[in-house]
Amino acid sequence: MKHNFGAGPGILPHEVLKQSAEGVMNFNGTGLSILEISHRSPEFEAVLNEAVALVKELLNVPEGYSVLFLQGGASTEFALVPYNLLPEGGKAAYVDTGVWASKALKEAKYFGQTEVVASSKESNYTYIPKDFTIPKDAAYIHITSNNTIYGTQMQSFFKSPVPVVCDMSSDIFSRVFDVADFGLIYAGAQKNMGPAGVTMVIVKDSILGKTGRQIPSMFNYQVQIDGGSMYNTPPCFAIYVSMLTLRWLKAKGGVPGIEQENIAKAKALYDEIDRNPLFKPVCATEDRSHMNVCFVMENPEHEKPFLKLCDEKGIVGIKGHRSVGGFRASIYNALPITSVHVLIDAMQEFQEKNK
Amino acid sequence: MKHNFGAGPGILPHEVLKQSAEGVMNFNGTGLSILEISHRSPEFEAVLNEAVALVKELLNVPEGYSVLFLQGGASTEFALVPYNLLPEGGKAAYVDTGVWASKALKEAKYFGQTEVVASSKESNYTYIPKDFTIPKDAAYIHITSNNTIYGTQMQSFFKSPVPVVCDMSSDIFSRVFDVADFGLIYAGAQKNMGPAGVTMVIVKDSILGKTGRQIPSMFNYQVQIDGGSMYNTPPCFAIYVSMLTLRWLKAKGGVPGIEQENIAKAKALYDEIDRNPLFKPVCATEDRSHMNVCFVMENPEHEKPFLKLCDEKGIVGIKGHRSVGGFRASIYNALPITSVHVLIDAMQEFQEKNK
Repeated sequence: MKHNFGAGPGILPHEVLKQSAEGVMNFNGTGLSILEISHRSPEFEAVLNEAVALVKELLNVPEGYSVLFLQGGASTEFALVPYNLLPEGGKAAYVDTGVWASKALKEAKYFGQTEVVASSKESNYTYIPKDFTIPKDAAYIHITSNNTIYGTQMQSFFKSPVPVVCDMSSDIFSRVFDVADFGLIYAGAQKNMGPAGVTMVIVKDSILGKTGRQIPSMFNYQVQIDGGSMYNTPPCFAIYVSMLTLRWLKAKGGVPGIEQENIAKAKALYDEIDRNPLFKPVCATEDRSHMNVCFVMENPEHEKPFLKLCDEKGIVGIKGHRSVGGFRASIYNALPITSVHVLIDAMQEFQEKNK
Repeated sequence: MKHNFGAGPGILPHEVLKQSAEGVMNFNGTGLSILEISHRSPEFEAVLNEAVALVKELLNVPEGYSVLFLQGGASTEFALVPYNLLPEGGKAAYVDTGVWASKALKEAKYFGQTEVVASSKESNYTYIPKDFTIPKDAAYIHITSNNTIYGTQMQSFFKSPVPVVCDMSSDIFSRVFDVADFGLIYAGAQKNMGPAGVTMVIVKDSILGKTGRQIPSMFNYQVQIDGGSMYNTPPCFAIYVSMLTLRWLKAKGGVPGIEQENIAKAKALYDEIDRNPLFKPVCATEDRSHMNVCFVMENPEHEKPFLKLCDEKGIVGIKGHRSVGGFRASIYNALPITSVHVLIDAMQEFQEKNK
């Protein structure tokens, strides 16, 4: 039995894996694999339609927004956002809360001016800057809701005079929020929504088509909307697994239901980090992520033996990112609280052994 | 038992499907799914490395070329090719042999001048134009080796004074050819190589970096080369299934082995179309594709009942593209010759019934 705390591609529900494997052999009784059926078949179109409908239902997506399933990961959206939203000579505002936020910023520079309105880079991104002014002449403001590497998360969002664009790759579907606060949301699927290979985009239709730019078809959100995410062959299997994962989420009580579980999992683990004298947290208490729990050891020499103990318990994917060190326990939607308790037990056992 | 003649996503070998399904439940004995392991894990890196090595071995890729696994399908490459190869103010040459070729051309127009050096559009693309001059001042010449909709295929390639860029989405790995004749080859995986969701690119390193363009990271072939197809999270599962398909191909005798099978399958089917008075081919005999066999019926009223008969025999995916009508039997690498004989038997049975 493995306990998968990997940061992404991350854990998926066991029943989703089972249904996915069945679909690879015989999809919905067609006698064909989901890997070899036409994306134009009624059977696949039903999958895509259900995936879109589940996103709209689970996130209460208001009228006037489109839901897309694209390829290329969040890193592609880093470029597509300014391509579609930043006019020539225009300016975009960015909040720099980590490596991914700053990569998004880097790509925007290919398309126009950028302004970093806040950054926590000077403290190695251990907190979320909260005190910033949104320039009213910006085409949009870009934020990253959860920072996987540092274990920080925006606890709330804000009203803005310009469209808010948010990279929610690592906490989409983990907590209740209001889509209406955003102009565009994007998320690589491989943390809370499905496997690597598909990116979800939710975009407010009215913010598109205002830049005057000529945009190649595959990079043009309007073309993708008009094509219903099927301008070309979509990543059928990744969409199928995402749809199954969203079905699973709905059956668990949807986003409000999973949010309560995520709060309980995070609380249990942070409580142990705070209690156990061998461990310490790495980021500001008020910005602690409910998805990626980062911690180090008071005595760095304890890290290797603790990792070995984790390995013996079937705990995998817990090594911290090289830029932070220590440990990172990713506790995405699909991770059961029992796995969190296995980790807590290991921390307590290690404390006992090292008294 | 289904006989999958679908044009793509197309048939995959049964043993590849079986191994893929196993990987979804427990990948290589890790106790984790291929859908939930880190792309930076040694286990996944081994998959990607083997996929690249198999491409190089099966196609005899010469030194000085890089093999990439990207996302977005051939339609994304339609834009990435001029983005990376066409200088501002430069010109690219295109051979227009069908809908996909003309879509590639359309995307190039976002980046510079284009010249159509040959086209068979006036005959609804029923033949491959062969008599054209390559402009020496073009940055590259773009061709489409096989045209799925019309069932035409370039039977041979040519030497060129400028780099040849080829969309091989629908016949890659189906026949022997010399990679050295090309500057860049791209192929969506979902016909002969794997599932939808991954695109293979083979590029001659020396043709890159010459345009002076500033290219966003994800669209920059050099960035993807430097990142070993892992600049960001790759589509792990689609790469895994592609690797398994290439392993299967190698075990079958590689490209020379499958080419002989493909010739035999195509000959059997075209022979029946030529012999059977109820059916007729739609394109020039010398340009007949060994991948997509298009045909219509002498009496259009026969088409519906023949389709019904096919359905009864488990033959699926055989309806022709709406722009050509009739039938299209896609006989990709993974389609066994026994399935071709089931189709031929159905054609003969239909002839008997309609004497």
